[in-house]
Amino acid sequence: MEPATFVLFGATGDLAKRKIYPALYNLFVDGKLAQPFSLIGLGRREWSDELFQSNVEQAVRQFSRRTPSDDASLRQFVSNFRFCVLDIGQQDDYRKLLKLVEQREEELGLPDNRLFYLSVGPEFFEPIASNIQESGLGSARGWKRLVIEKPFGHDLQSARDLNRKLSETFAEEEIFRIDHYLGKPMVQKLGALQQANPVIQALWSNRYVANVQITASETVGVEERAGYYDHIGAVRDMFQNHMLQLLMMTAIHLPHESSSEKVRFKKKNVIEAVQPLQKQDVRAQVVRGQYAEGSVQGKPVAGYLSEPGIAPDSRNDTFIAARLLIEDSYWRGVPFYIRTGKRMKEKSTRIVVEFKEPLAQATVSSEDRAAPNLLIFEIGPNEGITLQINSKDLENKGEFRPVHIDLDLHDRQEDVPEAYENLIGDALRGDATFFAHWDEVELSWQWVQPILDAFEENLVPLQTYAAGSYGPAGSDALLAEDGYHWWFDVEPEQLKQENQTQKGEQYAYHANN
Amino acid sequence: MEPATFVLFGATGDLAKRKIYPALYNLFVDGKLAQPFSLIGLGRREWSDELFQSNVEQAVRQFSRRTPSDDASLRQFVSNFRFCVLDIGQQDDYRKLLKLVEQREEELGLPDNRLFYLSVGPEFFEPIASNIQESGLGSARGWKRLVIEKPFGHDLQSARDLNRKLSETFAEEEIFRIDHYLGKPMVQKLGALQQANPVIQALWSNRYVANVQITASETVGVEERAGYYDHIGAVRDMFQNHMLQLLMMTAIHLPHESSSEKVRFKKKNVIEAVQPLQKQDVRAQVVRGQYAEGSVQGKPVAGYLSEPGIAPDSRNDTFIAARLLIEDSYWRGVPFYIRTGKRMKEKSTRIVVEFKEPLAQATVSSEDRAAPNLLIFEIGPNEGITLQINSKDLENKGEFRPVHIDLDLHDRQEDVPEAYENLIGDALRGDATFFAHWDEVELSWQWVQPILDAFEENLVPLQTYAAGSYGPAGSDALLAEDGYHWWFDVEPEQLKQENQTQKGEQYAYHANN
Repeated sequence: MEPATFVLFGATGDLAKRKIYPALYNLFVDGKLAQPFSLIGLGRREWSDELFQSNVEQAVRQFSRRTPSDDASLRQFVSNFRFCVLDIGQQDDYRKLLKLVEQREEELGLPDNRLFYLSVGPEFFEPIASNIQESGLGSARGWKRLVIEKPFGHDLQSARDLNRKLSETFAEEEIFRIDHYLGKPMVQKLGALQQANPVIQALWSNRYVANVQITASETVGVEERAGYYDHIGAVRDMFQNHMLQLLMMTAIHLPHESSSEKVRFKKKNVIEAVQPLQKQDVRAQVVRGQYAEGSVQGKPVAGYLSEPGIAPDSRNDTFIAARLLIEDSYWRGVPFYIRTGKRMKEKSTRIVVEFKEPLAQATVSSEDRAAPNLLIFEIGPNEGITLQINSKDLENKGEFRPVHIDLDLHDRQEDVPEAYENLIGDALRGDATFFAHWDEVELSWQWVQPILDAFEENLVPLQTYAAGSYGPAGSDALLAEDGYHWWFDVEPEQLKQENQTQKGEQYAYHANN
Repeated sequence: MEPATFVLFGATGDLAKRKIYPALYNLFVDGKLAQPFSLIGLGRREWSDELFQSNVEQAVRQFSRRTPSDDASLRQFVSNFRFCVLDIGQQDDYRKLLKLVEQREEELGLPDNRLFYLSVGPEFFEPIASNIQESGLGSARGWKRLVIEKPFGHDLQSARDLNRKLSETFAEEEIFRIDHYLGKPMVQKLGALQQANPVIQALWSNRYVANVQITASETVGVEERAGYYDHIGAVRDMFQNHMLQLLMMTAIHLPHESSSEKVRFKKKNVIEAVQPLQKQDVRAQVVRGQYAEGSVQGKPVAGYLSEPGIAPDSRNDTFIAARLLIEDSYWRGVPFYIRTGKRMKEKSTRIVVEFKEPLAQATVSSEDRAAPNLLIFEIGPNEGITLQINSKDLENKGEFRPVHIDLDLHDRQEDVPEAYENLIGDALRGDATFFAHWDEVELSWQWVQPILDAFEENLVPLQTYAAGSYGPAGSDALLAEDGYHWWFDVEPEQLKQENQTQKGEQYAYHANN
């Protein structure tokens, strides 16, 4: 990693405080931040360097996964943090910024490598990018990189417009689009697990996989984002980006030696191969849901339409479930079910790979059947891998009993690097592997666009679901059409007990919930 | 299970005390012993029923995996145990026995089902069988079964002779040949794990498996069996029976619905397909070892030739390692390495399935290579299954780290039924699945005979190994010829640490031990 200047737009904001400073601090502690390291924080507030540094220190103390052990290291960490007042629309402010950046580069003997991190609303991406160019900030001899976060457009057309604008200043390889799901350690391991393990590789196709279930459920409602969320919905907020990225990372087939370009090319292959939807077919493949009142973890909560800031006749989606088919030789015939929603029963991000039953089972009566084999990737809140296999219960001869093999990847959860830590470290090193390439973003929007259109034209009924449930009935029906059911739709504490039961019982249990 | 009479030859012997009575007691406690249950113990000593019963009670108290909770149940268990003095060669004694059996059948209202358990030396198998026939003991209208234990012959010819004699009285389906390795719970699960799990089934062939390593190592020496063992050796004592049974159970491919006949037929298929050895080729495929002095678990121990009761110039084998090739479409090209020995470093029975490396690895420098995937079946002293896969070490980007997934099948080891419990229960129910069929025994002797001949003619050098080691150097060389090494040749407590290291290191470590 070469030393660089980190130019942070939105330095007084919430994301910077909760994620960016703690991530940089942990990289610093692990010796993964090239020294000297210059950071210029930008904001409209009239902060001094001292106030800025003390805010950063406080943010680290409050949000870092590791508690700073001594003040000295924290002091040293922030010592090269400077603050610069900047109005995003003011060209003069960028020239002032350039001066400060160059001055610090000279003082610290830094090469003029500059990373521009835009921790601001998407409406500011374009003006910032063009001002970076016009001010000369982006024309240094070193490298320049742009780091931005979702939302990247609100539909296919706006995403294309935005990308065209940004590409006037930054080349594709200079743009690092953060999808923080790609920073999660288990997601980063998904490809590697398959790549480095012939026993998983061997199973990774329609020959053995029956279906794949990708769930990201939240227990929270719209919270303070109501006004924004009511114009966005689950498809734009979660599905187009995070969920489709999880799909790509699950279905990918990597060669052993995989460069950043190769990984992103293979991901593109996946999303390109997803059977496109026509607007009139959306209804058959997608379930649109909105939460009604209910109870989450024992507490009664309001329905979406009663939330403050939500239009009382809103038809916004707070839940989506979809069936996707990947039309390539690996996955043809294997449905990928994806669902995400707010105010659901549990907070969990999970991928379940259900394997086909042995052919011989077709001839066996249902009581004698063994449960399907499952490979379960727990992405959050805790990470883990579980393999469900069947063992013979010798105490009850002849009966198969599903048993779970748990893989604990880390002894302590605090050892798991946070998504932002991985991603910021990668961006500073120039490794784009776990950032969304424009092609992926565009293809994702392209796949999602007919859903947005169909929702807009009310071609898909809006199904309500009780807050604290697993989504509307249509979500279960979607899988039942194919003879499947969502796995593990139970309270986490019941999961273990659940695992001891047979498939039939499990489904019955599930249906009651 | 139908009620039956259990006629036990050798009722005052060590095996009865240590294994048979505790096994029957645990079956009784679990309600798996059909009532009423009549047991007639036979021996030359002039024991009364009371003395016999109190001996059985004491044996259960001393050796049962479960401590009897109350005296009443133990009293009830032994209440139908009777003792009968019998001289194996005396025909009159069998007629006396028949009377007692019939009297008890009448008293208890038992059908005349009779199980004859021969817990006696193999030299008594023939006379007992023929006396059973001559006395009329075996001509009841109910079923009759014969349970015998190893050794079943001392070479191919003697085994055939013995079988011919026994078959004059008992049909093949009436003969239950105990190989107590087949009674071990993990061994009984081997076939089922593959059968009920498509994810294991998929991997169970030469497409994915590189080699299979089957080890049964003991730390003890010849102990009080010196005189007997010096004429037997590791090939006859362990290899021809237990080790080849483990081979069959590992390599078997079972259909989902598998009757006892089908399991044994499929096992026969395996041993039939093992490439036969010619006497002059034994040297290239088999390592013959004998322990020299050394130290086991920190204590110095004598070499084999210095053991009391061993001929000072004995060339008897206390260790054997062999490479076997199964010439069928599943396993062609996959070496099965088998080793067993006395006075080795650890007491362990273990099967390691090593999977092939991903093809792509061939192009990658050795430092970047991931360790091979392994599936490890621990059969004894504790049972367990471990899958070794590679995960990405995100703290050291780009490096693969082997991680272990442990499957604990039982919460408490005392819940694991003992081999004899499984087998005696099966014999009483008439389930021959986990007993050695004559075909298996004959084919095993047939495969082993050239080894016995080659040893006899000294065509294979006798290699010594230090007591407390993993066997002679030739054993390591056997695998090294194919580019492999024995896995986990370390102290058990070092196993965990070991597992964290890469293959290269592991091998280095192994080589130093």
